[in-house]
Amino acid sequence: MKKLLIATTALVAGATAAAADVSISGYGRFGLQYVEDRANIIGLGPVPATGAEASDTIISSRLRLTINATTETDVGVTFGAKLRLQYDDGDTQTAGNAAQFSVAYEGLKVQVGNVDTAWDSVGLTYDSEMGYEDSSFGDSINPFYAYNSKSQSTGYQGVAATYSVSDVNLYFSYVNPDQRVKDLDVAYGNDWDKEIGLAADWTNGQIKLAAAVNLSSGGYNNLDTYFIGGAYNFGDGNVGLNYYYYDDKDGYYNGTPGVGADLSQVTVYGNYSFGATTVRAYVSDVDASGADTAYGLGADYSLGEGARVSGSIQSGFAGETVADLGVRFDF
Amino acid sequence: MKKLLIATTALVAGATAAAADVSISGYGRFGLQYVEDRANIIGLGPVPATGAEASDTIISSRLRLTINATTETDVGVTFGAKLRLQYDDGDTQTAGNAAQFSVAYEGLKVQVGNVDTAWDSVGLTYDSEMGYEDSSFGDSINPFYAYNSKSQSTGYQGVAATYSVSDVNLYFSYVNPDQRVKDLDVAYGNDWDKEIGLAADWTNGQIKLAAAVNLSSGGYNNLDTYFIGGAYNFGDGNVGLNYYYYDDKDGYYNGTPGVGADLSQVTVYGNYSFGATTVRAYVSDVDASGADTAYGLGADYSLGEGARVSGSIQSGFAGETVADLGVRFDF
Amino acid sequence: MKKLLIATTALVAGATAAAADVSISGYGRFGLQYVEDRANIIGLGPVPATGAEASDTIISSRLRLTINATTETDVGVTFGAKLRLQYDDGDTQTAGNAAQFSVAYEGLKVQVGNVDTAWDSVGLTYDSEMGYEDSSFGDSINPFYAYNSKSQSTGYQGVAATYSVSDVNLYFSYVNPDQRVKDLDVAYGNDWDKEIGLAADWTNGQIKLAAAVNLSSGGYNNLDTYFIGGAYNFGDGNVGLNYYYYDDKDGYYNGTPGVGADLSQVTVYGNYSFGATTVRAYVSDVDASGADTAYGLGADYSLGEGARVSGSIQSGFAGETVADLGVRFDF
Repeated sequence: MKKLLIATTALVAGATAAAADVSISGYGRFGLQYVEDRANIIGLGPVPATGAEASDTIISSRLRLTINATTETDVGVTFGAKLRLQYDDGDTQTAGNAAQFSVAYEGLKVQVGNVDTAWDSVGLTYDSEMGYEDSSFGDSINPFYAYNSKSQSTGYQGVAATYSVSDVNLYFSYVNPDQRVKDLDVAYGNDWDKEIGLAADWTNGQIKLAAAVNLSSGGYNNLDTYFIGGAYNFGDGNVGLNYYYYDDKDGYYNGTPGVGADLSQVTVYGNYSFGATTVRAYVSDVDASGADTAYGLGADYSLGEGARVSGSIQSGFAGETVADLGVRFDF
Repeated sequence: MKKLLIATTALVAGATAAAADVSISGYGRFGLQYVEDRANIIGLGPVPATGAEASDTIISSRLRLTINATTETDVGVTFGAKLRLQYDDGDTQTAGNAAQFSVAYEGLKVQVGNVDTAWDSVGLTYDSEMGYEDSSFGDSINPFYAYNSKSQSTGYQGVAATYSVSDVNLYFSYVNPDQRVKDLDVAYGNDWDKEIGLAADWTNGQIKLAAAVNLSSGGYNNLDTYFIGGAYNFGDGNVGLNYYYYDDKDGYYNGTPGVGADLSQVTVYGNYSFGATTVRAYVSDVDASGADTAYGLGADYSLGEGARVSGSIQSGFAGETVADLGVRFDF
Repeated sequence: MKKLLIATTALVAGATAAAADVSISGYGRFGLQYVEDRANIIGLGPVPATGAEASDTIISSRLRLTINATTETDVGVTFGAKLRLQYDDGDTQTAGNAAQFSVAYEGLKVQVGNVDTAWDSVGLTYDSEMGYEDSSFGDSINPFYAYNSKSQSTGYQGVAATYSVSDVNLYFSYVNPDQRVKDLDVAYGNDWDKEIGLAADWTNGQIKLAAAVNLSSGGYNNLDTYFIGGAYNFGDGNVGLNYYYYDDKDGYYNGTPGVGADLSQVTVYGNYSFGATTVRAYVSDVDASGADTAYGLGADYSLGEGARVSGSIQSGFAGETVADLGVRFDF
């Protein structure tokens, strides 16, 4: 059997100024994932007993393959299409997701279809993540639309734009939960609306700032969410603060229409690198009654070439403990 | 993350006379699609109301990725296998289709499995298409088997052959709707039969001719269909005429067994290019009682490197108006 | 349309010492498959009649595409991820399977997820196979876990290791049928257990030896299976003997818990090549009451570059005749 290898950028760049390119990139990760008192599982496999106790520690893994196809026209406009194949442990098979299309010209990129949303794309918001699974209780807790890695509902349709100029990135996104219907209120009884996101981030030397607004976040009518974050780099490390405000005017998100509850969330995080090792920590607080303060402690060890061993121990808003230890490698 | 690029033909050709190759090619398209009085939608998404009014204009898109794998043996015979991943807006995920296998030697190519059928492959038949979605009411209106881009029924099995010599292409295809059963009549109650297609096209300077016969078209017992087409190229443009005759002996296609109705269809079309712009038009007539004359007017603007902006306004056999405007790019 | 080709090994190797690579390889095969008195099919397609007689001869085909992504770190450890897309005739679509992850360093390779099991990977065990579909009644008849080419059950999780040193390969595999539950006995009522496999093979000049043990084979509690095989190469041909012993302590595999039945199986095979042709034969005997002696006779004709025409006639343990004739090509 002949083994066929896809050449790397360096090879192609030197050989041709091709107008059309197809690339495959992605990452793999696997390791141990511990979740304290993982929910019991009912209705498993072939002959399952109800109420079988779940295993707190499992092998958790993901393979992500992203196929990118682009064509650059004579005047320098680049058309692109993206498809992802993602497997997570527990899945029985792997399917492709919904396609994303794009048109890019210099600093401007417009996306159509399964778009990257402003709330999900803005800088800093995920910078408290840790472990080989890149997770954090300090991530924003509101529902919101993002690029769908595995599937999306029928009729889901987004349009997004990013514009980059010198140190600033601007993000805009619009997602219609179901473009097939003329009036979402009529079709879905006033619960759903189009999500509109606006965001910006700015980097200047050691300082990075980011802000975002997401109206009808995740398609929940009048669930408007806000984010502002700042980070400071001091050479071998970073410290940052992310502040979120969730304005749930109609209370749809909280489950009882008409009984809106507003929440805010503050996440403070930092990391410090010495040699191949990076240590990470965060604390996150939500002003909901009864919520504990979440926190996490993690470490990465770089193996070079985009591979690392990472682990973390984290405690959530209900006081639950989760931990992970594994490896991640990019390709 | 390293970005891996698949090299283009030019690169590979210069570097090696490899016996085995895997290629990925395809196209992306997206834009606005208008359908007058698009059918109302019942039973949508999470909490749908019955009878919600459909949106006449939607963003319609497609991503097509075709994986071609070939091996050329020592004596010059090329074995090939093809798999397609196609996403259309409204799909929740993307799956691969059924595989096509082939053996080729000089001008002869034999296909097995999910084959390209004669009726679907012959020249001229789709030449009245327009818009970024390449559609036309002037396409033949009969059901017929074609390469299945997304899925096919269990047991569907085809064998096809094409032979090209100087200016002539010959096409043959045979499709068994269900190869698992010994007798389709016993298994499916006399409604289904194997489809057999024969076709040829010929190009000579400015003139192109094409003809096809399809017996038990689309597997409908005794639905025999015929096509003859001709086109004339006058430098910057083309004019053509396609004539179809649908002989529905048993009337299965028309829904009432024993009450066969024969139909003919005539499509006249033309296009004209000046610079990067091509304008297109067609008229199509079906001799069914009550059918309107269908027509369409469209235009393409080439962006180079296989990318174009296209739009069309078309009117169907029931007098309905459809329109599209968008972009398509090949890779 | 630009045709994009994936370059072959030779090309890439000469051009770059890339740390990350993505390759696509696999094979296609198609041909005629005959099964005497193929089981009648009930409940087919759109309007099936019950009891429709099955066709003994069908066109049987497979397309296998394997995507391999690897990253080699600075110290020479290679991380890998593998995903397969496989279509077999009768499938309506093609989905990716469950991912396999690996870490390799010199002769040692550790796999996680959808692993290659010891029983399935050890040498010699499949050496009596023949025909374009590579089948043999002489293969071991016990259920066992193997790399899942198309799908696996939720919670299926394996860990495996292979170690190669000079002429010896060592194999270890561990498969948990459902890692989600703490106790398989509680969840599945004592029928299921983790499969543990150990195997080794050794080649020395003309002699090859292989042995394997598989505990709770295929997850069947206490179905322990054993394999020992030997082969001798005499230049233009090989002869070999495979012996299997299936110790079904709890009788779960035989269907009646508590009524265990032990079986042994002996397969003797040989092949001989002259020029591009290889002829193959085997005889296999199972000591179950009423079982016939199975045998097969086959031939390959090499077309070069990994392509071949192969055919076989085989007779199974119930005296049934099967035959195949087709082509297989690797890429």
